[in-house]
Amino acid sequence: MKITPWEVSGDIDYQKLIKEFGVSKLDDKILSRIKKHTKDLHFMLRRKIFFAHRDMNWLLDEYEKGNKFFLYTGRAPSGPIHIGHLMPWVFTKWLQDKFNVELWFQFPDEEKFLFNKKMTFDDAEKYLNENMLDVIALGFNHKKTHFLVDTQHAGLMYKHACRVAKKITLSTVKASFGFTDSMNIGIIFYTSMQAVPAFLPSVLKGKNIPCLIPLAVDQDPHFRVARDVYPKLDYYKPAIIHGMFLPPLEGVTGKMGTTGTQTAIFTTDTPSEVKKKINKYAFSGGRDTVEEHRKKGGNPDIDVSFQYLKFLFEPDDEKLKEIYNKYKSGEMLTSELKEILIKKINVFLKEHQKKREKAKSQIDKFMFRD
Amino acid sequence: MKITPWEVSGDIDYQKLIKEFGVSKLDDKILSRIKKHTKDLHFMLRRKIFFAHRDMNWLLDEYEKGNKFFLYTGRAPSGPIHIGHLMPWVFTKWLQDKFNVELWFQFPDEEKFLFNKKMTFDDAEKYLNENMLDVIALGFNHKKTHFLVDTQHAGLMYKHACRVAKKITLSTVKASFGFTDSMNIGIIFYTSMQAVPAFLPSVLKGKNIPCLIPLAVDQDPHFRVARDVYPKLDYYKPAIIHGMFLPPLEGVTGKMGTTGTQTAIFTTDTPSEVKKKINKYAFSGGRDTVEEHRKKGGNPDIDVSFQYLKFLFEPDDEKLKEIYNKYKSGEMLTSELKEILIKKINVFLKEHQKKREKAKSQIDKFMFRD
Repeated sequence: MKITPWEVSGDIDYQKLIKEFGVSKLDDKILSRIKKHTKDLHFMLRRKIFFAHRDMNWLLDEYEKGNKFFLYTGRAPSGPIHIGHLMPWVFTKWLQDKFNVELWFQFPDEEKFLFNKKMTFDDAEKYLNENMLDVIALGFNHKKTHFLVDTQHAGLMYKHACRVAKKITLSTVKASFGFTDSMNIGIIFYTSMQAVPAFLPSVLKGKNIPCLIPLAVDQDPHFRVARDVYPKLDYYKPAIIHGMFLPPLEGVTGKMGTTGTQTAIFTTDTPSEVKKKINKYAFSGGRDTVEEHRKKGGNPDIDVSFQYLKFLFEPDDEKLKEIYNKYKSGEMLTSELKEILIKKINVFLKEHQKKREKAKSQIDKFMFRD
Repeated sequence: MKITPWEVSGDIDYQKLIKEFGVSKLDDKILSRIKKHTKDLHFMLRRKIFFAHRDMNWLLDEYEKGNKFFLYTGRAPSGPIHIGHLMPWVFTKWLQDKFNVELWFQFPDEEKFLFNKKMTFDDAEKYLNENMLDVIALGFNHKKTHFLVDTQHAGLMYKHACRVAKKITLSTVKASFGFTDSMNIGIIFYTSMQAVPAFLPSVLKGKNIPCLIPLAVDQDPHFRVARDVYPKLDYYKPAIIHGMFLPPLEGVTGKMGTTGTQTAIFTTDTPSEVKKKINKYAFSGGRDTVEEHRKKGGNPDIDVSFQYLKFLFEPDDEKLKEIYNKYKSGEMLTSELKEILIKKINVFLKEHQKKREKAKSQIDKFMFRD
């Protein structure tokens, strides 16, 4: 397996990742500490889809002392949004609502421009606008949510990125990201910009504020580097909560990507596109024939449709368990499981697309103004 | 000798530098082309204190076709301004007046912060303000002069710095600046920010505009790197005109620095400080005794006081020649030569300090507003 901010491939062993990245398992003790404040637990926590963390105990200690945190997450605009992207944001929205906290949402529009030879800033800007609509459509509270666009907010961020950069050597980024001398010097600097929103609110308020970063685990290396720097600048190390990747349609390895447009379910897909993609591409845990399936049963643990229900579209544990059992026993066929998923996705997307349309007039309200 | 943007030391051989840097000698043919437009030649051109160039013929070709250029120079705030800093700016002001062109003046306030372990952004900001006063005091036309401060104008510059950075590899900056893996990642990126003002006016006007950069020759490596990039972004390579360094008080090697405050004449020095510094420290080309001096004569070519007259304070070639001859023949003693210089500097500084006071209310007029 390979997990960097720029490549996720292979068979992902999340338990191994916990050791390799040096993060902590999100265990039941932490979950019950969270539940004390949120009353219930989001299904992504109950199901350990958010599976690891850094410093959550410290964050909750501070919270219980009355030292509220803010949330920070982001999206590098590089293509259309698929349902895999939504996972950490859906969870972030829940955190915002339950803890009633500010969210800083970064759009590092230079990141993919710097990494991707063919990408232009015009491409980045087009996707930036599209991607913002998807974030807004998830229902974040605009009074407590602040969009930062790296190139547009550099007047605010670049100076602080330099403060971070001064404390990070070339050796460190080479070791942490596998960079070589053939990389461009923008890529080398970039991690400094991603580090900034974790303390920018502290700069603006003139006092140290704890930060919690919900992210997909591939983004962890940025903060592994930056967390060594924050205390040197007299800021808290942010806490982090790490999510798994939504598997690609073709099978339960890697993460959903956007390179082949057939292989992802986009937020702008029509009901018939969704139906076609799921029916045609979603890797099945079913047997070769209906007879065999009825007799031996299917395997929901490798079935992509079941995984999508588990990761995103069936929040009800009882219902999910029922589907699991029925599919495993052979009572439910792959076509029936797929039908359930298709319906769930299309109900979600119908609503999402409506809100996405409305979002077009709301971007201004979310943009941070100094 | 060692000449990089961050270190100038040793015995500087400008003829050798022309070869090593791959620049062209500023010969009489070019000077007469310039004179065609300026009517007279600045004494720094007549005396070849600006001694080398890149692409001046191209720049003049474009100018003669009606394609006006703009000027770009700058100052990294890192300490108080001494008379050595003024040299290229005095010349730049002449170019602005003679060609009636815009000037973009960059203050990269992150540069020395990134390079100097102990320097803070508070230090940089303090010097930024002080340094701006000296630039304004030289009499630039505020309607045609635009200050860019990297951290303050990053909202405008960072995106374009990324466009440059994408085209520069780590290998290139390592080879060009001698960087190692122990350098911080801000230093690595910095040259991209210095590259931007050479095409920013073209971005803002939406058309390609030629650029001329008057600079002290130690800054050339930045543009050697950037000049390979500009055509890839469809901008002109800027022309450059290279100046020598004002020698330090103690002798005619290296350049005037600010590490020991006795060794530089600052723009805020009092008449008695100037007198004391010149009398005490200015390296003399005179003989050990008055008798020997009268008999054998002095050496104006290594005499720092004479060099300061030549580089900055005696624009009249006839008068300079007279001093040269009198000193060489022994008719003029070192103390007399020093007295001439002290008087010249103090007349200049009296006026400069008055204008510097007035400049305090003018900074706003010079700051570029998008």
